[in-house]
Amino acid sequence: MSAPARRGRRPGSPDTRAAILVEARALFSAQGYAGTSVRAVAAAASVDAALVHHYFGTKDELFLAALEMPVDPRQLVAPVVEGGPEGAAERFLAIFLAAWDDPELRPALLAVARGVMDPAGSKLLTEGFLPVVIQPIGVALGLDRPEHRMTLVASQVAGIILLRYVLAVEPLASMPQDQLVATYAPTLQRYLTGRLP
Amino acid sequence: MSAPARRGRRPGSPDTRAAILVEARALFSAQGYAGTSVRAVAAAASVDAALVHHYFGTKDELFLAALEMPVDPRQLVAPVVEGGPEGAAERFLAIFLAAWDDPELRPALLAVARGVMDPAGSKLLTEGFLPVVIQPIGVALGLDRPEHRMTLVASQVAGIILLRYVLAVEPLASMPQDQLVATYAPTLQRYLTGRLP
Repeated sequence: MSAPARRGRRPGSPDTRAAILVEARALFSAQGYAGTSVRAVAAAASVDAALVHHYFGTKDELFLAALEMPVDPRQLVAPVVEGGPEGAAERFLAIFLAAWDDPELRPALLAVARGVMDPAGSKLLTEGFLPVVIQPIGVALGLDRPEHRMTLVASQVAGIILLRYVLAVEPLASMPQDQLVATYAPTLQRYLTGRLP
Repeated sequence: MSAPARRGRRPGSPDTRAAILVEARALFSAQGYAGTSVRAVAAAASVDAALVHHYFGTKDELFLAALEMPVDPRQLVAPVVEGGPEGAAERFLAIFLAAWDDPELRPALLAVARGVMDPAGSKLLTEGFLPVVIQPIGVALGLDRPEHRMTLVASQVAGIILLRYVLAVEPLASMPQDQLVATYAPTLQRYLTGRLP
């Protein structure tokens, strides 16, 4: 392990940290999560891999930092997993809506959503956010066919994000949270635990 | 009514027709469907309103031409409406998937989808396609709260378009049509005719 200090930069230097993030975002966008190593990010930013770990922790954490999520989605959804499969859809929707409807979080979440819908950033979603954050929820809940089921969940949640938050289509944009939960929970619970073809 | 010929252009001139479409798309994007008149499009293209009607027919038809849909979605969904509310979700999904999975139609449909997800083009969806094409399906089916129900339908269909076609997320991207219909029909039928909060 080389000491970060040998490069003459303070470990906490905002410039170095920002430079690593820029390279991480570029590599994750171009090559997906699996195709990007911490070592490659470090090389692109001309720093030691140990420095990347020092700033960001694991590769998962580097990925989430590169996405510029304003909250750690894995912490956020922990109560969904802890409660088990029953009622998981309702708990997920309540947490999801509370985050998106928080005026301090929404601008950053919107920026993430617009970024991953852009063709240049789409691998951040398809080969990053979905396998790193979404599909592990299905695995942790002990679902059969977790990837299949969580992709169905994602297909409804993506539509809610697009219509309610990105495009602000009424009556979805103004619908109270409890009405949204009651509307969408049966759909998501069937995708999680129902009989599917 | 002034004769189109007075401008020295043939009524079928591709240039004039293309110029009208460019102005129509710009106005519908900026001001939505309701905020755009055929007269305003004609003025922006420096032609007579009668010439716009000559080329495109009604304002609805001008709007759909400006969207550059490769098929007329109202003709496409006619069998959904004609069959009545029962089984409408299944019929809708079969028609929707047949269009999107047609290799001759998909590139143009993808271009429309990308266009309306872009902030600059989003009014084409929110103040155009949804009220002109989608919500009338709910009205024609005689649903209660047709706007509410069709917006829920749109929120699931938009997610399918995004994940299956725009981002090609597996296993959705490769799922056979009949499995997709069986997976999503219960969701959409509930949004159309089920008890909702």
